[in-house]
Amino acid sequence: MNKIEFDILEVKSNILNDNDRSSDNVREILKKNNVFMVNLMASPGAGKTTTLVKTIEALKDRYRIGVMEADVDSDVDAITVQNAGAKVIQLHTGGSCHMDADMTKEGIEKLDISDIDVLFLENIGNLVCPAEFDTGATKKVCILSVPEGDDKPLKYPLMFQVSDLLLIGKMDVMPVFNFDVEACKKYVADLNPDMEVLPVSARTGEGFDKWIEWLVKEIQKFREKEV
Amino acid sequence: MNKIEFDILEVKSNILNDNDRSSDNVREILKKNNVFMVNLMASPGAGKTTTLVKTIEALKDRYRIGVMEADVDSDVDAITVQNAGAKVIQLHTGGSCHMDADMTKEGIEKLDISDIDVLFLENIGNLVCPAEFDTGATKKVCILSVPEGDDKPLKYPLMFQVSDLLLIGKMDVMPVFNFDVEACKKYVADLNPDMEVLPVSARTGEGFDKWIEWLVKEIQKFREKEV
Repeated sequence: MNKIEFDILEVKSNILNDNDRSSDNVREILKKNNVFMVNLMASPGAGKTTTLVKTIEALKDRYRIGVMEADVDSDVDAITVQNAGAKVIQLHTGGSCHMDADMTKEGIEKLDISDIDVLFLENIGNLVCPAEFDTGATKKVCILSVPEGDDKPLKYPLMFQVSDLLLIGKMDVMPVFNFDVEACKKYVADLNPDMEVLPVSARTGEGFDKWIEWLVKEIQKFREKEV
Repeated sequence: MNKIEFDILEVKSNILNDNDRSSDNVREILKKNNVFMVNLMASPGAGKTTTLVKTIEALKDRYRIGVMEADVDSDVDAITVQNAGAKVIQLHTGGSCHMDADMTKEGIEKLDISDIDVLFLENIGNLVCPAEFDTGATKKVCILSVPEGDDKPLKYPLMFQVSDLLLIGKMDVMPVFNFDVEACKKYVADLNPDMEVLPVSARTGEGFDKWIEWLVKEIQKFREKEV
């Protein structure tokens, strides 16, 4: 079995704090450390961890990668992600349905990002609450998986409004589900005309080159202080 | 196109209210009207609406069925469910990630349950927050769909602790996913030893007889005031 070599930190939401101020604070810390951070959001079981594992594999020779695994409970994902080659911290939200900026800051401080180039926050599996809280991440990426259906932007609009990129995940199972990619793109364009939509499959690697290309381009922009 | 013949009600969560008292109040209203109510919870896209449609079809000659469709936005599911033969109300939660007992009561009053035997609440697609709020429903049913993975009870334990029945949904796509039903049952048994687990597919009808049998038995118990 795999040795657990990461910290497990209990983080707590404080609704009295000013999240806008805290997220600005996280952004400053990231800038200072030259760390590009992605807030990865999706439903439970949409494939966040599998996508992260493949992403780490594709980027780890190029960047030093850190991952903050946020979960209500358990540490199964943190083990998986650590084995893929990332520096990992497990954050337990103790029932909280989202990560806010203060919780993110706590995680960043405990993980220590001085030896990291790219940091991923795997948010709680939830299409509602995480969309409401700016964690201070450089970019927000949402995964909508094919089995969930193409109509989710209609039902959970805020997530699709605030995200910078949408990955349509699990494209390899298209043959067994009714998922209309063009319809989904249209719903998304109505909410967020500027958002790019990339169909991918972490299992087969379909579309992954475009996702990695997007990341590398955004990391570059961030480093040139254009973001 | 289908004519929309249901009300759309904006409901709001009031965190200052005592949810326990309100849920007792909902239970009294249900008892008084002899209405058996199911709080149906699951992730986005787990198949709540499809399961409801098949359930309505199986039960509508036997019971008068009502459905409260809770969504952050949109009314696509309410249209679908109305076409299946249920009396429907669409509840918009205005961003709220769950239904509480007061919102449920508002919905019940607006729907008018005097001509209903069985009432389903399709909760917001979310494995975290809805588990925290007792709506006053007679029974809580959770759907975990095969594409989400068998490890979800580890990550979202409360949902599996509070539910009375777990449906493992989308069993027809088992061949294309790694989902270990026995492992899932074990995780669930550790959290909630008394909960029954029924594998079903709304698409093929697999296991649906057992789910309908469970419902009919529980409705009977409720009517005999054993619940």
